[in-house]
Amino acid sequence: MSELIEPRILKGFRDSMPQREAQRQQILSTLQEVFRLCGYAPIDTPVLEYAEVLLGKGGGETDKQVYRFTDHGGRDVALRYDLTVPFARFMAAHLGELPLPFRRWHAAKAWRGENTQRGRYREFMQVDFDVVGADSASADLEILLLMRQSLAALGMQRSVVHFSHRAVFNEFLSRLGLSARALDVLRIIDKERKIGAEKTRELLAEIAGAQTAPAILEFTRIEPTPRETLSKIQKAVGAEHAAAVRLAEVLTSLDRLGATGSFILDPSITRGLDYYTGMVFETFLMDLPDIGSICSGGRYNDLASLYCNQKLPGVGASIGVDRLMAAMEELGLLKGDLSAASLLVLCLDETLLADYHRFAARFREAGMAAEVYPEAKKLAVQFGYAEKRGIPLALVWGEEERKAGRVGLKDLRSRESFDGLTPEAAIGKAKELLR
Amino acid sequence: MSELIEPRILKGFRDSMPQREAQRQQILSTLQEVFRLCGYAPIDTPVLEYAEVLLGKGGGETDKQVYRFTDHGGRDVALRYDLTVPFARFMAAHLGELPLPFRRWHAAKAWRGENTQRGRYREFMQVDFDVVGADSASADLEILLLMRQSLAALGMQRSVVHFSHRAVFNEFLSRLGLSARALDVLRIIDKERKIGAEKTRELLAEIAGAQTAPAILEFTRIEPTPRETLSKIQKAVGAEHAAAVRLAEVLTSLDRLGATGSFILDPSITRGLDYYTGMVFETFLMDLPDIGSICSGGRYNDLASLYCNQKLPGVGASIGVDRLMAAMEELGLLKGDLSAASLLVLCLDETLLADYHRFAARFREAGMAAEVYPEAKKLAVQFGYAEKRGIPLALVWGEEERKAGRVGLKDLRSRESFDGLTPEAAIGKAKELLR
Repeated sequence: MSELIEPRILKGFRDSMPQREAQRQQILSTLQEVFRLCGYAPIDTPVLEYAEVLLGKGGGETDKQVYRFTDHGGRDVALRYDLTVPFARFMAAHLGELPLPFRRWHAAKAWRGENTQRGRYREFMQVDFDVVGADSASADLEILLLMRQSLAALGMQRSVVHFSHRAVFNEFLSRLGLSARALDVLRIIDKERKIGAEKTRELLAEIAGAQTAPAILEFTRIEPTPRETLSKIQKAVGAEHAAAVRLAEVLTSLDRLGATGSFILDPSITRGLDYYTGMVFETFLMDLPDIGSICSGGRYNDLASLYCNQKLPGVGASIGVDRLMAAMEELGLLKGDLSAASLLVLCLDETLLADYHRFAARFREAGMAAEVYPEAKKLAVQFGYAEKRGIPLALVWGEEERKAGRVGLKDLRSRESFDGLTPEAAIGKAKELLR
Repeated sequence: MSELIEPRILKGFRDSMPQREAQRQQILSTLQEVFRLCGYAPIDTPVLEYAEVLLGKGGGETDKQVYRFTDHGGRDVALRYDLTVPFARFMAAHLGELPLPFRRWHAAKAWRGENTQRGRYREFMQVDFDVVGADSASADLEILLLMRQSLAALGMQRSVVHFSHRAVFNEFLSRLGLSARALDVLRIIDKERKIGAEKTRELLAEIAGAQTAPAILEFTRIEPTPRETLSKIQKAVGAEHAAAVRLAEVLTSLDRLGATGSFILDPSITRGLDYYTGMVFETFLMDLPDIGSICSGGRYNDLASLYCNQKLPGVGASIGVDRLMAAMEELGLLKGDLSAASLLVLCLDETLLADYHRFAARFREAGMAAEVYPEAKKLAVQFGYAEKRGIPLALVWGEEERKAGRVGLKDLRSRESFDGLTPEAAIGKAKELLR
């Protein structure tokens, strides 16, 4: 006998077990229906692409984390590390075929060889959705509404989307003569939730001076009403500035839709290190304030500039499925084991095999998930299996039942038995018990 | 301006465009429901695994096709090349947690650097389903029934599963003293559909002699009735042989289920080069006899022997999604573009933005997919977009309609207009037009 191989998995990778996988599938089905109703087309792209296509010609910070290798044909290839870059390549490759505006969603895995110590996985799933081909308040508003609607469809009614415009804070800093330190300032502001106002002011003072630091913090505050926040922004960058105009348009529409309570103009939102050029969004859950944004996004003015000369402005957002599921779990929104059948047809006598499968088929036709125990093992073993698997009902059909032409039904939770039922009556009883 | 990167994809890889991806999602949703009703749990495994885990310690023929490389941590890793090996590793890794019998299904991509000239893709999707932990006629029968049920749920009612037992033909050849040439004989038999009986007999004669060749061919024939085919098998290997006993049990049950017309005992089915040890299955479509088997499988007596000492007998089958979709397309079973919305809310005036999104929301609540054109472009442009995208209806709401408090609806297929409608009436009319 040869030596066994240890069935280990790579660090940062996981199996998706039945319960979790069924939950994930249900989440994706729910989102699929939301996107379908909103006219978003599903797409998929290859997991593996030319490294040059995914990483460009230069070598950035991301590169080190990318799974990259040489394939059989000597090609320099890589696993995708997000869904945005493949989407940009997709748009450039299919420009002629796709009418604009093009709305797409894409639920798929991506891979990064990240440090796993921070609870991050090297294989993770994202759900991205974008409108490409229009730079308008309507498209921005649509993504804002859709972010919230996606979460609401999953049961997270109490979510708030915070939004701002990338140019607002940049312009504000530029007027303070701090453009060169913009990234450092953004990093500090992004941390305020974690480190508190006092510490933030100290850090800002190191960069901007003790006099200017409070003004920066003041600027990032959410005012009592959206109009007041907008006024502050208009004063800071000028009411005619494109960013102020776009924010005013969106705010007016949200107001008319009676939705201002769920969407908060928040000048502290910058998504500092991303490639956004217009509006930026983050979503918070009122019931889980510390979990961070589970759906973020923004506007970019040129999606596919690496690959083609046509300008493709767009706006979109991305849901991190792992964080989403962690949030849903904490909120008690994940259903139990959806993968367990409702009924186990017990196997009492292997010569009655055909009957067992016929009964299972009838229960399935009535909408109940049913499985047949595949061998005539001891009943204790079969009941033990049902219990471990979380199957609530069992159907009894042995020589005795066959002679009488009547089946038995057992509720394994209450240990109640219902004997002498016609198959029709057993189906009705099972439905009643499962209600 | 930097030089553009060509947005090319790797040979043997494809983008999944909206129409095809929506069709694929619909197929997977249909199968998901079939498997749920039958008590099969969904799972997922990492795309990337230790090469040793996927390939074992030796180096086989498959190895050359596998995408294998060294990751950042110096680990020898590979992309999965099927769903069976990761499932075996999964079972070994989670033995304690999973009650047996364990039924799972897994729809996922796999990768092989195959020669693409034969219309094969290097990235392909499979749907596998298995029952592990029982070696019984019931489990074999269940997979047979499920193969056919899966295809029927997708609209392929006229499918036939051909089945046999791996040991039958081996035993028959052994009695002819041809064990050593078994693989060669199997290869020739497998080709008979393509090369015809005459040529097959010639090739067999080269191996088995001119006298024995006709007996081999005769043995692989399907007799007029299943019982006669079974008798022939029983004579050849002995009625007490485990293979003959299992085939008799399954045949009896199929008979009792009135299903013998859809399941054909066919001694020519061997799945020669696979790892099966018991029953073997292939599915053919009566309306597309030349497309080959779109769902194949069989019984193996030890799934995870590479990784653990516990015996895990199982039986399962696999659907190749590319061939399945090719078959469905030829049979006219793929729906049109499921990704297109039913209604386009035209944008006549950007100050009415909030109204447009409110109207879209109302149509969605009524179950119709609706999208808002995101800019006040010329109507010809907006209608052109709707036509290219295949959107049948448009909603008209401009200054005039707003003053009158009435919307207009256009059927873009018939070019009929319906004016002066209340929003409620427009929803009713749209439903009527879409019927």
